[in-house]
Amino acid sequence: MKTDSMTTIFDRGVFGFLKILMRGAGQVMFQRSAWTGLLFMVGIFWGAYAAGNGAVAWGALLGLVVSTATGFVLNLRAEDGEDGLWGFNGILVGCALPTLLHPTIWMWLALMLCAAATTWVRRGLNNIMRQWKINSLTFPFVLCCWVFLLAAHDMDALTSQASIHHHAHHHLPHTLGVVGAIECWLRGIAQVFLIDSWVTGVIFIIALGVSNCRAAVWASLGSALGAATALVMGAPMSDIAHGLYGFSPTLTGIALATVFYRPEWRSAAWATVGIIFTAFFQAAMNRALAPLGIATLTAPFCFTTWLFLLPMLRLNDDHPDHTSWHSSLKQHLSKR
Amino acid sequence: MKTDSMTTIFDRGVFGFLKILMRGAGQVMFQRSAWTGLLFMVGIFWGAYAAGNGAVAWGALLGLVVSTATGFVLNLRAEDGEDGLWGFNGILVGCALPTLLHPTIWMWLALMLCAAATTWVRRGLNNIMRQWKINSLTFPFVLCCWVFLLAAHDMDALTSQASIHHHAHHHLPHTLGVVGAIECWLRGIAQVFLIDSWVTGVIFIIALGVSNCRAAVWASLGSALGAATALVMGAPMSDIAHGLYGFSPTLTGIALATVFYRPEWRSAAWATVGIIFTAFFQAAMNRALAPLGIATLTAPFCFTTWLFLLPMLRLNDDHPDHTSWHSSLKQHLSKR
Amino acid sequence: MKTDSMTTIFDRGVFGFLKILMRGAGQVMFQRSAWTGLLFMVGIFWGAYAAGNGAVAWGALLGLVVSTATGFVLNLRAEDGEDGLWGFNGILVGCALPTLLHPTIWMWLALMLCAAATTWVRRGLNNIMRQWKINSLTFPFVLCCWVFLLAAHDMDALTSQASIHHHAHHHLPHTLGVVGAIECWLRGIAQVFLIDSWVTGVIFIIALGVSNCRAAVWASLGSALGAATALVMGAPMSDIAHGLYGFSPTLTGIALATVFYRPEWRSAAWATVGIIFTAFFQAAMNRALAPLGIATLTAPFCFTTWLFLLPMLRLNDDHPDHTSWHSSLKQHLSKR
Repeated sequence: MKTDSMTTIFDRGVFGFLKILMRGAGQVMFQRSAWTGLLFMVGIFWGAYAAGNGAVAWGALLGLVVSTATGFVLNLRAEDGEDGLWGFNGILVGCALPTLLHPTIWMWLALMLCAAATTWVRRGLNNIMRQWKINSLTFPFVLCCWVFLLAAHDMDALTSQASIHHHAHHHLPHTLGVVGAIECWLRGIAQVFLIDSWVTGVIFIIALGVSNCRAAVWASLGSALGAATALVMGAPMSDIAHGLYGFSPTLTGIALATVFYRPEWRSAAWATVGIIFTAFFQAAMNRALAPLGIATLTAPFCFTTWLFLLPMLRLNDDHPDHTSWHSSLKQHLSKR
Repeated sequence: MKTDSMTTIFDRGVFGFLKILMRGAGQVMFQRSAWTGLLFMVGIFWGAYAAGNGAVAWGALLGLVVSTATGFVLNLRAEDGEDGLWGFNGILVGCALPTLLHPTIWMWLALMLCAAATTWVRRGLNNIMRQWKINSLTFPFVLCCWVFLLAAHDMDALTSQASIHHHAHHHLPHTLGVVGAIECWLRGIAQVFLIDSWVTGVIFIIALGVSNCRAAVWASLGSALGAATALVMGAPMSDIAHGLYGFSPTLTGIALATVFYRPEWRSAAWATVGIIFTAFFQAAMNRALAPLGIATLTAPFCFTTWLFLLPMLRLNDDHPDHTSWHSSLKQHLSKR
Repeated sequence: MKTDSMTTIFDRGVFGFLKILMRGAGQVMFQRSAWTGLLFMVGIFWGAYAAGNGAVAWGALLGLVVSTATGFVLNLRAEDGEDGLWGFNGILVGCALPTLLHPTIWMWLALMLCAAATTWVRRGLNNIMRQWKINSLTFPFVLCCWVFLLAAHDMDALTSQASIHHHAHHHLPHTLGVVGAIECWLRGIAQVFLIDSWVTGVIFIIALGVSNCRAAVWASLGSALGAATALVMGAPMSDIAHGLYGFSPTLTGIALATVFYRPEWRSAAWATVGIIFTAFFQAAMNRALAPLGIATLTAPFCFTTWLFLLPMLRLNDDHPDHTSWHSSLKQHLSKR
C-alpha cells in the first residue's frame, strides 16, 4: 500500500524517521523538539537500567516505533506524523506495560497491539473532542493500557508485576528531609514516563529547558506543588516519595500554563489551581481504581486539564481577540 | 481585576448579592425565586440543627457564597449569575461535605475549592451538552464531590463520617405505618439538600409553592412515587425511611413535568415513568458505588433526566411548533 | 393518541406487525430480513428449552413486542420501526433478564420497563452519536440491563440467578478437543442472544446466510478468532468453552467487515484486528465488572466497534469518494 505518507517517509530516510520518533518522545510533555525527545530517551534508559529493568527502556522505544509506524500504515494526516503526534502515546504504553507486567513474549505482543491502537484511538477521540476545543491529551495511552492491564488479570499469559504503587526499589523513610523532598520532587517529573529516579527527573528538566524554559519551570512547579498538596492533605507518604503525586500535576502545569493559555499572570493562577486540583483527582482515582487493581496512569492530568479547558474562559479580557488561548493553540488543537 | 460582572455586583450592593445567593439556593429545585431560596435556607438550618450538625447549614451558606463569588471572579456571563445559576451546585457541595466528612479545617478548605470548581465545571459541561439540548443539572456538584469524597479515603486530613446510607439519627421501625410513610415521603424531599428531617420537607414544599405550585406538587409526587417503587421492589427499608429513594425522583419529577416539557397529560405520564425509572437507577447506583464507599448524591436524577430528555420526543404533536418543550426551555438551556 | 405511526400499523395488520418484529430480531446482527429474524427466534426457542429455561424464549418475544410497541406509542420515526430498529435492543433485554434473574412477576414487570426504555434510550444516544458518524449499536440494551441488574442486588423483589459466567448446564472438560473446539465456536455465535447451545449457533449461521452470506462468514470468523485469542492468552477455559469470548467478536466482525466499511481486503484486515482487540476488551471488562457482579453483555463489542469507527479511516483511498464507508452506511447511520 504505497501512500503519500509512506512516500514521504521513504524520501526522508532513516534520519528523518529518527527525528520523527524523537519528536514523538518530546510531545509527551508537549515539546516538538527532537533534542528534547532524545534527552527524554536518555533519561528513560538511565532510569530503567538504574532500576534493573532495562525492558522498560526497550519497551519505550518499541512502543514509539510501533505507534509511529501505525500512523504511516493507516495513512493518517502527514503533518501529525511530522510533529511527532503519533508516537507520544505509544512511548508511554512502552514504558507502562513492562513496568506493570512480566516481560513474557505475550507481553511484548500485547505491547505492540496496544501501542498501535493508541494511534487510531487518538484520532477517534480527537474527532469527538475537536468541537469543544480540547484534545485527547495522553488519554489514548491511558485507555488502551487500562484495557490490557485489566485483561492481564483474567489472562494467564499476561501477569502483573507488583503494581505501580508498590514498585519501590529503595527503602524510603516515613518523613521527608530536605534531600528526600528534593528527590521526591524530581521523581515526580520522571514518573511522567513511569521512571522512579531523581536523576531522570534532572535530565527531564534539562530536556524541557532545551526546548522551552517556561515548560521546564512549570513542570518543576507542577511536581513540587502536587507533592506539597498531597503532603499537606496527608496522602500516603510512600506514594508521595515515589513521585506518584507529581507526574500528573507536572503535565497539568505545562498544559495549562504554557500550551493552552497564553502565558501571563492570570493563566499562571489558573494553572496553579489546576495543579492543586490534580492532586485531589490523583487521590480520588487511586481510590476509585483500587478495586480494579490498575494504576491511574496520567488520567488525573487528562480529566483535570479537560475540566479547566472546557469552560473556555476568557482569561485575557483586555486582549483584542477576547480569548486567552495561546497563540499556538489552534495549531495544537488541529494537530494533536 | 475590575470586570463588568464585578462592576454590576458593586453597583447592586449587599442586598443585590443576597438576592442572587437566595436565587442560587432556589435553583437547586429549578426555582429562580429568592423567597423560595430563603425558605430552603430556613429548612436547611432547621434540619441541620435538629440533627445536631450545624456545620451542614454553615457549609451550605459558605458553598453558596464561594461558588457564586467564583462566577464573578471568573467574569462569567452576568445573566447566569443574576439568575442564581452559579450557586446551586455550590450550596449542595456545602451540604454534602460536612454531612459526609469530619469538620476539620482541611474539610472547610476542600469545601471551598470544591464549591468554586462546580462553577467552572458547570460551564464546561454545559459547553459540551448544549448541542444536545440538555444541561448539566446538578452533575457539577456530583462530579466535584465525588472527587473530594474519594480523595478523602486516601488523604488523612479528610476523614469520612458514617456514610450517607447510615447517617441515621433516629431509631426507625422495620415496617412503615401511616405516620412513618408520611415522614419518609417528606424526608425524601428534604434529602435533596441531604437533610434528614420531615419538618424540613414541609418547609421545602411550602418554599416551592411560593414560587410554583406545580413544582410543589411534582416534588411531592416524585418523592412519594420514588419511595413507593422502592418499597414494592424490596429496597432496604432503612434507605427508604430516611428518604434516600425520594430525593432524586423529586428532582426528576420537577424537571420533566414542569421545567423541560410543557405541563400537560403527556408530559405528566412521561415524568411518572421517569420517576419510577429514577428509583431503579438509585438502587443500581447504590450498588455500583458501594465498592468505592461514596454516596450517589443526585446522580440518579441527572442520568435519568438526561435519558428522558435526549430522545427529544415531540410529546405535543398537536401543537403548532411540533415540540413539547416548555416555553421556558430555551431560556433554561442557555442559562443553566 | 392516534398518530401517524399507529395509523400505519393498523393499516398493516397483524402480519405487518409480525414482519416488523422479526426484522427486529434480525437487526441484532444487522440483518433487516424477517426470515433471518424468524430463524433467530427458532434458535432462541431451541436453546432456551434445551437448557430447561423456556422463560428466556418467552422473555425474548415479550421484550421484542414491548420495545417495538414503545416506538409506536412514542410516535418515533416510522422508517426506523419499519426496519426493525425498535426491537433489537428489546429482544436482547428479553434474553438477558430471565437468564440472569429469577422469573418472578417483578422480573417480568422490570423486563417490560427495561425493554421499553431501550427504545427511547437508543434514540437519545443516537442523537448524541450521529455527529461522529457512529450509532449506539446494542448499547441501549447494555445500559438499561446494567441498571436493572445492579438494582437487583439491592432490591429483594429481583434476585440474581447464578451469573452469566457460571450458568453452565453441561460438564465441561479442562482442555478442548476438536469437537469441543467446534462446540465452543458455535456457542460463541449463540451467546449473542445469551444462548449456551451449539445447535443454536448452527441455526444462527444459517439464519445469517439467508440474508447475507458475508455476514455468516464474518460471524463465524469472529467467534472463532475471538475464542482463539482468548485461548492463546490464557483466559479461563470455562468462559471460552461457553462461548463467552465469542459473542462480542462475532458482532464486531459483522459490523466492521460487512456493515460499516465496504467489504474488501483492507476492511477485512481492519475487522480482523478489531476482533482480536474485542477479545482483550472482553477480558478487561470481565475483570472491571467483577466487583459489581454484573455481566459485560455486548459492551466489549460496542466499545471496540466505536474505537474502530471513530477514526473515520479512509481505507479505500483509491476510490473516487475517498471514503471506504459501506454504501449502506448513510442509511444505517440515519436509521439505527
